[in-house]
Amino acid sequence: MKTDSTMESKTDALDTSIGKPLVAADQNGQNAVEDFVDPWNVHTSSMKGVDYDKLINKFGCSAIDDSLIERFKRVAKVEEVHPLLRRGVFFSHRDLHVILDCVEKGQKFYLYTGRGPSSDAMHLGHLIPFLFTKWLQEVFDVPLIIQITDDEKYYWKSLSLEKVKEMAVENIKDIIAMDFHPDKTFIFRNLEYMGQSVGFQETLARIQKLVTVSKIRGQFGFSDSDCMGKYSFPFNQAVPSFSSAFPQIFKGKTNVPCLIPCGIDQDPYFRMTRDVAPRLKFLKPALVHSKFFPALQGANSKMSASDPNSAIFLTDTHEEIKEKINKYAYSGDRDTVKEHQEKGGDCSVDIAFQYLTYFEENDEELEKIRQNYSSGEMFSGQIKEILIKKLTRVVLDHQTKKKSITEDIVRGFMTPRQLVFDF
Amino acid sequence: MKTDSTMESKTDALDTSIGKPLVAADQNGQNAVEDFVDPWNVHTSSMKGVDYDKLINKFGCSAIDDSLIERFKRVAKVEEVHPLLRRGVFFSHRDLHVILDCVEKGQKFYLYTGRGPSSDAMHLGHLIPFLFTKWLQEVFDVPLIIQITDDEKYYWKSLSLEKVKEMAVENIKDIIAMDFHPDKTFIFRNLEYMGQSVGFQETLARIQKLVTVSKIRGQFGFSDSDCMGKYSFPFNQAVPSFSSAFPQIFKGKTNVPCLIPCGIDQDPYFRMTRDVAPRLKFLKPALVHSKFFPALQGANSKMSASDPNSAIFLTDTHEEIKEKINKYAYSGDRDTVKEHQEKGGDCSVDIAFQYLTYFEENDEELEKIRQNYSSGEMFSGQIKEILIKKLTRVVLDHQTKKKSITEDIVRGFMTPRQLVFDF
Repeated sequence: MKTDSTMESKTDALDTSIGKPLVAADQNGQNAVEDFVDPWNVHTSSMKGVDYDKLINKFGCSAIDDSLIERFKRVAKVEEVHPLLRRGVFFSHRDLHVILDCVEKGQKFYLYTGRGPSSDAMHLGHLIPFLFTKWLQEVFDVPLIIQITDDEKYYWKSLSLEKVKEMAVENIKDIIAMDFHPDKTFIFRNLEYMGQSVGFQETLARIQKLVTVSKIRGQFGFSDSDCMGKYSFPFNQAVPSFSSAFPQIFKGKTNVPCLIPCGIDQDPYFRMTRDVAPRLKFLKPALVHSKFFPALQGANSKMSASDPNSAIFLTDTHEEIKEKINKYAYSGDRDTVKEHQEKGGDCSVDIAFQYLTYFEENDEELEKIRQNYSSGEMFSGQIKEILIKKLTRVVLDHQTKKKSITEDIVRGFMTPRQLVFDF
Repeated sequence: MKTDSTMESKTDALDTSIGKPLVAADQNGQNAVEDFVDPWNVHTSSMKGVDYDKLINKFGCSAIDDSLIERFKRVAKVEEVHPLLRRGVFFSHRDLHVILDCVEKGQKFYLYTGRGPSSDAMHLGHLIPFLFTKWLQEVFDVPLIIQITDDEKYYWKSLSLEKVKEMAVENIKDIIAMDFHPDKTFIFRNLEYMGQSVGFQETLARIQKLVTVSKIRGQFGFSDSDCMGKYSFPFNQAVPSFSSAFPQIFKGKTNVPCLIPCGIDQDPYFRMTRDVAPRLKFLKPALVHSKFFPALQGANSKMSASDPNSAIFLTDTHEEIKEKINKYAYSGDRDTVKEHQEKGGDCSVDIAFQYLTYFEENDEELEKIRQNYSSGEMFSGQIKEILIKKLTRVVLDHQTKKKSITEDIVRGFMTPRQLVFDF
C-alpha cells in the first residue's frame, strides 16, 4: 500500500500531462492498449474497460488494497465496508489514510462530491458516487457538500442558462430522493452559490492568483479558441475542496479536512487543487476514486445521458428497463450453447453481471450467480432476468421517492446555512 | 461630430491591438511620438502629454466637439456644462448621443464608474472621474454604480486579500466624502458583491461563454504565464455595464442604458464589453473618456500613488502640498527672466497652470492667469502660490468631510439594495 504522502506529493506535481492519450506499452514495446481518460472523454478499446492499474500509475494516485480496507473497518468501527468499496468499484485514493488519522483523533472532516447536470434525468451510473457518499456520511456522521456544476454544462454545451438551471433542479431532486439528510447536507448550483458566498469568491480569488493560464491549458487540454468560461471552470470545481468556501458551515475555519468521492476522470481537477493547497496554507483534499459504470453496450465506453439506449435512466418504466437490458446489454455468452457449456460465460464483460455487482448487495447471491455463469450452467439471459427485476425495483422506488420532493424541500437543501455540526 | 453608430461599431470591432505601442508618424514618415496607453501603463515622451487626437483615431472613439456640447446643454437643460467637459478634460466618447436620445425620450439610464484601490490614500487625479460623474448624476438624477476593483489589485500586486480590502474601504470613504447621495449611489468591492449577487454571476457567465482566451490575451497583452485571476478581471469590469448585474436596482431589467465616465486608458475593457453586448441582446454601454491628470513632474507620465512626490494626496497637509508644488511642479517658465518676459510662459506644460484648469472653476479667473502667464507678465511661482491656496482648501475640506464618514455610512452605501429610482 502506497501511503507515503511525500511520494504522492511528488507524483502530484510531476503528472501534468492530462489531455494526452494514455498509452500503455506491452512487453514488446508495442502499444497494446490506448486508454484515454479526462473529465470529458473516456476511451478504451477493451471490452473489460479501462486498464485501471495503468491509470493509477499514470495519475499518480494509490490503489485501495486489503490492508487499507482493514484499517478503514477498524477506524470506522464497521463490520464490513460498502459493497462498492469491497468489490473494487472505489479502487483508488489520495490521502484516505489522512482522513482515517483524523477520525482516530476524533477530528471531524467533510465530504464533497458533485454532479454536472447533463439531462433532465439521471442514469444509474450517476447514482454510484452518491450511493457510496451516503454510506460514508452515515458511517462518519459528517457534513456533505454537493456541487451541481451548471456552469460547466453552460460553457460546454449549446444550452441556455435557463435550461441548465432546470436540469440542475431536476438532478437535485434525484439526489435528494436518495435520502440524504437535510440537516447534514448542503446542495448548491455553482452559478447560484457563487453569487451568495463571499467565502467562495475569496477562496476562488486566492486560487486564481496562483495558477497560470498555461498550467490550466496543459492540465485540461484547452485551446486558445476555448471560451474564458471553460478556463474558469476548473477553479470553481476546486474551491469547495477548502472549508473556507463555506463559512456558514465551518464558521470561517479554513482547515477542516475534506474527502472527495468521485469518478477517476475527475482527478485532474483535484491534482490542480492539491498542488495549490500548501501555498495557500490549506489542507490538500483527500480522494476516493470510482471506476466507470459501463454502458449497456459494454465497458469500452462511459454511459452517455444523451444516448437513451446506452443507459437505464431513473425515469425509465419497467418495460423500458426490460427492453433495454434484453436488447442492448452486452452479453458474455459464448458463440454456441455447446461452447458456452464447455468454457462458461465471461463475467468480466457480461454487462448484466457487471450491473449486479453494483446493485446486488448480497455477496453470497452475487457469488452464486458468478459461479453458475462462469461454469456455463447459466446464460446471460437468466442474469438479465434477475437484473431487470432488481433494477425495476430500484428505479420505481426512486420514482416514488422523487415524487415527494417538493420545490420547498429542494430550496431547503440549497439554502446556505449552518448544518447540525458544530465547528 | 461623428455620431454614426454603425461607423463606430466597425471601429470597435476592428481595433483589437491594445497592448502594442501607439506609434504616430510625422510628415517624413519618421516616428515623431511613441505613445503607449493601456489600463496599466501610459507612456509618452511629450511634456504636453499623450497625443489625444491620435489616440481617438487609434481607439476608434469619437471626439467631443462643440456641437455635441451644445446638444448636451439643450437636452440636459443646463446653462453651462461642467468645467471638465467644457475645458476638454473629458474629450472623447462612445455613443454619448444615444444617452442624450434616451433623456429626450424621458428614459432613465444609469452611471457606472470605478476605482482600483492602489494605496490607502487617493490622490487628486483620482477625484477627476468622480467630480464629473457627480455632476452628471445631479444633472440627470440617475442611479450611480461605483465598482472598487479590489480583485484587480489583488491579482496585479503583491498584496494580501486583507490589505486590498483595507485599501478598498479607505478609498470608499474618500469617494463618499465627495458628497454622493446615499439613496442614489451603490458602491461595491468586486470580491464582496460577486459573492452577493446571482445577477452579477449570471451576467459574468454569459460574457465568459462568448469571449475566447486568445481574444483576451490580444486585447490586454496578457501572456501564458499570467495567472487566471488576471484573465478573469476584464470580465468583472465588463459586467456592471449591463443592468442585469443589479437586479435589486433595476428589478431584473436587462436593458437599462449605461453611461461610463472613465479615463481613456480604461477603454479596452469596454470595447470588449461593447463587442459582446449585441450577442447577448444587451445594450452597448456608452462612454465619456477623460485625459490623464498629469504628475507634478510633468504631463509625460500618469501620476502614481506609489510615488508620494508625483502627486498631491488627499491626506497631505498644507505644508506637504506647499513643498511638493514648489519643489516638484514642472514649470513652463523660460530659461531666463528676459526670455520669459519676451516669449511668455508655456501654459501647455506648466503643471501649476494645468492643475488650475481642473480646480479653478471660475473661467474668467483662469483666463486672466493664462493671459498673464502667456504674456510673460506672470511667473510659474505666482501660479504655484494660487494653486497651493486652492488645493489646500480642496484637500483640507475633503479631510474634514472624510472624518465624518463612519463604518456604518460605508456599510450603507455598500449594501445591495433598491435605490430611490423606480425601474
